[in-house]
Amino acid sequence: MSSPALKTETALPTFLAACRRQPVAHTPIWIMRQAGRYLPEYRAIRSKVGFTELTRSPELAAEVTLQPIRRFALDASIIFSDIMVPIEGMGVDLEYAPGPVIGTPIRTLKQVEELRPLVPEQDVPFMLEAVKLTRAGLPAHVPLIGFAGSPFTLFSYLVAGKPSKEFSVPRAFAQAEPEISARLLDKLADAMIVYLRAQVNAGAQALMLFESWGGLLGPSDYKRIALPPVKKIIEGLKDLGVPLIYFANQCGGSLEYIATLDVDVVGLDWRTSLGGAREILGPQRAIQGNLDPAHLFSPPAELKKRVDEVFTDIGPGPGHIFNLGHGIWPETDPDTVARLVDYVHERSAKA
Amino acid sequence: MSSPALKTETALPTFLAACRRQPVAHTPIWIMRQAGRYLPEYRAIRSKVGFTELTRSPELAAEVTLQPIRRFALDASIIFSDIMVPIEGMGVDLEYAPGPVIGTPIRTLKQVEELRPLVPEQDVPFMLEAVKLTRAGLPAHVPLIGFAGSPFTLFSYLVAGKPSKEFSVPRAFAQAEPEISARLLDKLADAMIVYLRAQVNAGAQALMLFESWGGLLGPSDYKRIALPPVKKIIEGLKDLGVPLIYFANQCGGSLEYIATLDVDVVGLDWRTSLGGAREILGPQRAIQGNLDPAHLFSPPAELKKRVDEVFTDIGPGPGHIFNLGHGIWPETDPDTVARLVDYVHERSAKA
Repeated sequence: MSSPALKTETALPTFLAACRRQPVAHTPIWIMRQAGRYLPEYRAIRSKVGFTELTRSPELAAEVTLQPIRRFALDASIIFSDIMVPIEGMGVDLEYAPGPVIGTPIRTLKQVEELRPLVPEQDVPFMLEAVKLTRAGLPAHVPLIGFAGSPFTLFSYLVAGKPSKEFSVPRAFAQAEPEISARLLDKLADAMIVYLRAQVNAGAQALMLFESWGGLLGPSDYKRIALPPVKKIIEGLKDLGVPLIYFANQCGGSLEYIATLDVDVVGLDWRTSLGGAREILGPQRAIQGNLDPAHLFSPPAELKKRVDEVFTDIGPGPGHIFNLGHGIWPETDPDTVARLVDYVHERSAKA
Repeated sequence: MSSPALKTETALPTFLAACRRQPVAHTPIWIMRQAGRYLPEYRAIRSKVGFTELTRSPELAAEVTLQPIRRFALDASIIFSDIMVPIEGMGVDLEYAPGPVIGTPIRTLKQVEELRPLVPEQDVPFMLEAVKLTRAGLPAHVPLIGFAGSPFTLFSYLVAGKPSKEFSVPRAFAQAEPEISARLLDKLADAMIVYLRAQVNAGAQALMLFESWGGLLGPSDYKRIALPPVKKIIEGLKDLGVPLIYFANQCGGSLEYIATLDVDVVGLDWRTSLGGAREILGPQRAIQGNLDPAHLFSPPAELKKRVDEVFTDIGPGPGHIFNLGHGIWPETDPDTVARLVDYVHERSAKA
């Protein structure tokens, strides 16, 4: 038996323990886009520097990553960056307006073959430096999450050229040109493997893959198109030994295929029942989510009811990380976030 | 036993028979937005008249409704109009740019109370006239579908003021102002009841309610917010005796609540498994859907495979109406639509 002192020294931070489905003193919580426009201190920095400049400045990126940690009792931190940062590193010309706009959308095999393989230390050194600085600035009990976009999500932006409501161009392209699409997705998988590995080398303690546009695909297309490159990435990271989180946005209809992925945590949007997902994904998987960002606009007593519904949905047992079901909205009151974090801790500690 | 001749005379059109879960000689098919921009003959008319003018001109609205029926062996027709037409009739100032933009978004109880109840014969006579003209121009075996937007979908546009990616304004409003929201939703339900009844009086033989933005809500919000006004509408139409179709777009997570609705047909988007939905909705319900509009960009042999997947998903038995899982895209080749319609008929007649 270990002494209480030793226990304290070696205990995993709550967030990492929950990723491993270990019992925890309270349900950990962090919030997608927690470093962002709803915070006045973030807006103060953004009033002076553009979005691209912010992602490319290690000191400022670390600073905005740390801002919500200073304000709230959050259990994890996620590096401030953008899923398109490594794409720029691969030689793709893009700007934010405010969504990513690609100079020349990728539509030919030649363009795919010309994409440079990513060499993170050369191509995105500022991002790795931001990870290092952030880790150095974080308290020991708050792990740092690194992240990347899923190949299909990156593909959607690269082929579309600009964000669109239905992403009809990349969806049609994936059907009309399955070979070129598969090659592009595979190349993106290779790039994301080295990108995520470099983040762990720089200090990231968990990794998250954002399947932000997976919900554009029906289940059989998800399986044929989006899933293979994700599998490749997960295989390419397994030896790192850090928890892998897969955010399957609006993929509730594809959970049976997601269940085949060897990830530690599946993140879910607010339209997908956590309890229903757990039945399909099995007890060996932790689940992250999924309060509707809209519920942060409820009166305080109602917000508690909505949080209670999330807890009721997932049910008892270890392996739940509380989060929103999507990124927090810029109009959100930071005081509501403070109330949310405290209530999640209080309610789950009692339970 | 009836004679073959009598049988032919009295047999329901295939589409209406499928709505009633009766055995049919082939699976009927129609296509959401079948009167639309993918047809050169539609674009020819739109090059001369604006969208609003087209919805307000009975002759032209009937003409574009009939265009796809002349070209393809479709089993049903849907009146060309827009879900916001009755909202204009209620005194709301709006224009299309190209989505609906509301002059003064509805955010107060006073604005809700000031909304005029709809009197279809006075407020939207052109729409009812278009239904009459279209019915007169259709072959007897092609039924005409009338339609309306669901209260929550109309609410989303009215509160947002303009289309947006996440509709964060109406989603936050629904949480922050539940009483005003419920009143608005109820008032919209009343208006849609008289609107849909008037369409049947004018000649519509089936009615469809578009829950286009239902997928913005998680299951418990769907139940609390979107479902009650839909129930009210369905109760207000039952005595008409025409089939009711509820298009539950991206509501796959809310099917257990949709199962409580007394509708004849549930339409599903391409992310929701038809077979999975049938298990939840029960055999007494016909199902409409759900080919991904992106699949119309597949090579011909692949398109057949995708159609086969839809048939495999729904399984054997009566009560399937083939459709896309969402509106057809303007970039679609009309020849592909012809191949789709013929293949659906051919394959289901063989089976």
